[in-house]
Amino acid sequence: MAPYEIVFLATDESVQRWRAPLSEALAGERLHWSPEAIDPSAADIVLTAVPAPGALAPFTSLRLIQSLWMGVETLLADATVPRNAPLARMIDPHMTRGMVESVCAHALAAHLQLDEYARFQRERRWKMLRGPIAAERTVGILGMGELGQTAAAALQGLGFRVLGWSRTPRAVAGVECFAGAATRDAFLARTEILVVLLPLTPDTRGLIDANFLARLQEGAVLINLARGALVSDDDLLAALDAGRLRHAALDVFNTEPLPPEHRYWTHPRVTVTPHVAALTNPATAAAFVAENVRRLRAGERLLGLVDRARGY
Amino acid sequence: MAPYEIVFLATDESVQRWRAPLSEALAGERLHWSPEAIDPSAADIVLTAVPAPGALAPFTSLRLIQSLWMGVETLLADATVPRNAPLARMIDPHMTRGMVESVCAHALAAHLQLDEYARFQRERRWKMLRGPIAAERTVGILGMGELGQTAAAALQGLGFRVLGWSRTPRAVAGVECFAGAATRDAFLARTEILVVLLPLTPDTRGLIDANFLARLQEGAVLINLARGALVSDDDLLAALDAGRLRHAALDVFNTEPLPPEHRYWTHPRVTVTPHVAALTNPATAAAFVAENVRRLRAGERLLGLVDRARGY
Repeated sequence: MAPYEIVFLATDESVQRWRAPLSEALAGERLHWSPEAIDPSAADIVLTAVPAPGALAPFTSLRLIQSLWMGVETLLADATVPRNAPLARMIDPHMTRGMVESVCAHALAAHLQLDEYARFQRERRWKMLRGPIAAERTVGILGMGELGQTAAAALQGLGFRVLGWSRTPRAVAGVECFAGAATRDAFLARTEILVVLLPLTPDTRGLIDANFLARLQEGAVLINLARGALVSDDDLLAALDAGRLRHAALDVFNTEPLPPEHRYWTHPRVTVTPHVAALTNPATAAAFVAENVRRLRAGERLLGLVDRARGY
Repeated sequence: MAPYEIVFLATDESVQRWRAPLSEALAGERLHWSPEAIDPSAADIVLTAVPAPGALAPFTSLRLIQSLWMGVETLLADATVPRNAPLARMIDPHMTRGMVESVCAHALAAHLQLDEYARFQRERRWKMLRGPIAAERTVGILGMGELGQTAAAALQGLGFRVLGWSRTPRAVAGVECFAGAATRDAFLARTEILVVLLPLTPDTRGLIDANFLARLQEGAVLINLARGALVSDDDLLAALDAGRLRHAALDVFNTEPLPPEHRYWTHPRVTVTPHVAALTNPATAAAFVAENVRRLRAGERLLGLVDRARGY
């Protein structure tokens, strides 16, 4: 069978990290490490993450656009990205584990009030805070897709009470599931630690605003590891300033890198990490790409297939 | 059957927290909330944690000394504590959960280098660190008693590779177990994140010194939630200053409260929490006390019985 013509369309730094694992995983195919290396109309597959606007337009005969990232909002927002090829997002098991580890780390830190103790340490203050154990603490997960469900299982393993909210109904063992807009306020009212794992879509952009934050329990903690544009920064800062929210752990931002002058950097109730909760691992991600290429050739259902109408 | 005469010997603040749950759990017994309330030679049981030296000497006819704390080194170090009564330590399931939560929180923070990111945040620096997932990270637990084994299971649930070291051989599912002094260096050489859960005994006092720390992997992280006197502070600070250890998360100290002038408070590689990793919960702990009192009356084996020769 003829090999596929596969174009890798990303930064030089990415080429460095991906070249060896992809070359190994896709040994039978023809890999091109820059768009100039091939006539775009002859390419079968593009591997990309956040291409420049219009960069995919010349690829008119694609059989697959495989994202190197889990979030595909950039590819969906660009009207010049060919619509005649299926779009698949990355589901790297290694990245999922990293995300779950970050969820658990930030949820435990919030639960044990380690942010408060860090403040006490700066003041050389020996002060105990009594708190509940995890079995008496409610974590709410907003977004119950693959990541949300895996995070829910890990949080349950740590003893937390877990609630889940999703757009469409889900049944997840041990998790009290809420579905649809009408249940969202009830979900937020019970949530002490909110873990945001929603995709960014026209529906979710700016979702976490003053009205949303006002529904959370007084003193709740927000953990956003998904996308910065889900959040209205002004509204979040106001809620933190007012003490309505006790803390926010933010890994993603409306502008990345987070500009040096942004208030998040210095806010005493904010933890900033530089979009590292879910770094793709080229070795395991390359295996995912290879599996999708195999499925494409075999005419099997692709993994991570994006519903363009739904937006993820 | 005659009720036991039970004396509660602790601070006024403790009396406040324990009075209601103990009164309820020991409803059939006679509880005395200060040593003056009863002729000491008529007391059957003393409930205490860290009594003043000599305070237990007048209690000559005890059937049980029940510690309110898990660590009993103060009771063992006081030669005037009656030796003719069994001594039991506290095994409060609520406290065990709290300890395991703290172990997981600090292990995940170490694993994800959240301490480094906190430093970057102070410098408004957007810098990603690539690291392994938990399945590629080795956590070593020093001390594989009840706490160590429960912590090992939780850490395995998060995906970590777990090693355990104990004085005497243990077999724990999924944990590579080391036992005895001869194996300690091999255990330390493989450990990236060391969780200390040893009891304080004459053998373990000052155990974590320069020689011990030199056996750990370069860049290892120390998590001490057990007892401050296990550690030589000067040696630990020297290892941190030299960068041999990347970080230390310390909940316990040689002197508590930690004095305001102590270097730990301000050291950039040290997280200080004020002995809160395992706070006893009077409600669940009172149930443990009641169970031991029932066992005492029934002549059954006591829970948490201390081997005075072994020291825990």
